[in-house]
Amino acid sequence: MPAPTPDPAFMREAIRLSIEKMRAGHGGPFGAVIVQDGIIIARGFNQVTSTHDPTCHAEIDAIRKACAALGTFQLAGCDLYTSCEPCPMCLGAIYWARPARVFFGNTKADAADAGFDDHFIYQEIEKPLGERQIPMQPLLRDEALAGFRAWARHEGRTEY
Amino acid sequence: MPAPTPDPAFMREAIRLSIEKMRAGHGGPFGAVIVQDGIIIARGFNQVTSTHDPTCHAEIDAIRKACAALGTFQLAGCDLYTSCEPCPMCLGAIYWARPARVFFGNTKADAADAGFDDHFIYQEIEKPLGERQIPMQPLLRDEALAGFRAWARHEGRTEY
Repeated sequence: MPAPTPDPAFMREAIRLSIEKMRAGHGGPFGAVIVQDGIIIARGFNQVTSTHDPTCHAEIDAIRKACAALGTFQLAGCDLYTSCEPCPMCLGAIYWARPARVFFGNTKADAADAGFDDHFIYQEIEKPLGERQIPMQPLLRDEALAGFRAWARHEGRTEY
Repeated sequence: MPAPTPDPAFMREAIRLSIEKMRAGHGGPFGAVIVQDGIIIARGFNQVTSTHDPTCHAEIDAIRKACAALGTFQLAGCDLYTSCEPCPMCLGAIYWARPARVFFGNTKADAADAGFDDHFIYQEIEKPLGERQIPMQPLLRDEALAGFRAWARHEGRTEY
């Protein structure tokens, strides 16, 4: 069975959230919904400034709510509709959550034009550690590896 | 004043968390601490499988807790010590939170060897949209731009 055509009504709901929640003072103008079998199971919106949580982007909020609703840490078979192309943080979260498809409204260039740092972060991720604007250095790797060795031996582990 | 030398004791605390919390069943073997003025202000650890939250990596957990403790959405002047080199999601979160420095124990190659998908996600982020394993498509950009236009006109906005 081919994947269903994306439904513009779901994107319009993400866009509606991006405007309504921003006007209500929650944060930046970003909204997202997650859809399973034609039904919205989670609505997310940016709450960075109101909750003092720099990770509370619309997609992260929607992914956390959808996973809580389903009682799972992955979103197999779900579609994510977001009012803006995901930033690197949200893109990473999408790969961990693994929805089937992602649809986005504004592009990352639009976000940059509106004053959001997505493009800068995309550039930084591709740089070697030593050239990034936030210094990132290795430390005590030999000791840290004990964590992965303990994981390999841990009988109760749930892989993800 | 030069930045202080990184303190191995903080990395050892991140490593301790990575093992202790994993053994207690919270999730994968990852720990992190955030330090301000020589004091740990937040301890984070992976809780993906126990809380059904694919975004609850050690760094995200630590960043959220540190911001809550400080009542701010940025971590100026703070250092992040993490038991493993950040995945793309956490790297994005780090750029949004903007700590001064990041120190990591295990490398992303070590994480891949231990069965974690970080390397795959780094590869995907660099691909054009159409070549990614999770399909990502634009939809209704003209309508979505209304969110950014509304933001530009919104007098009460807090930029971040």
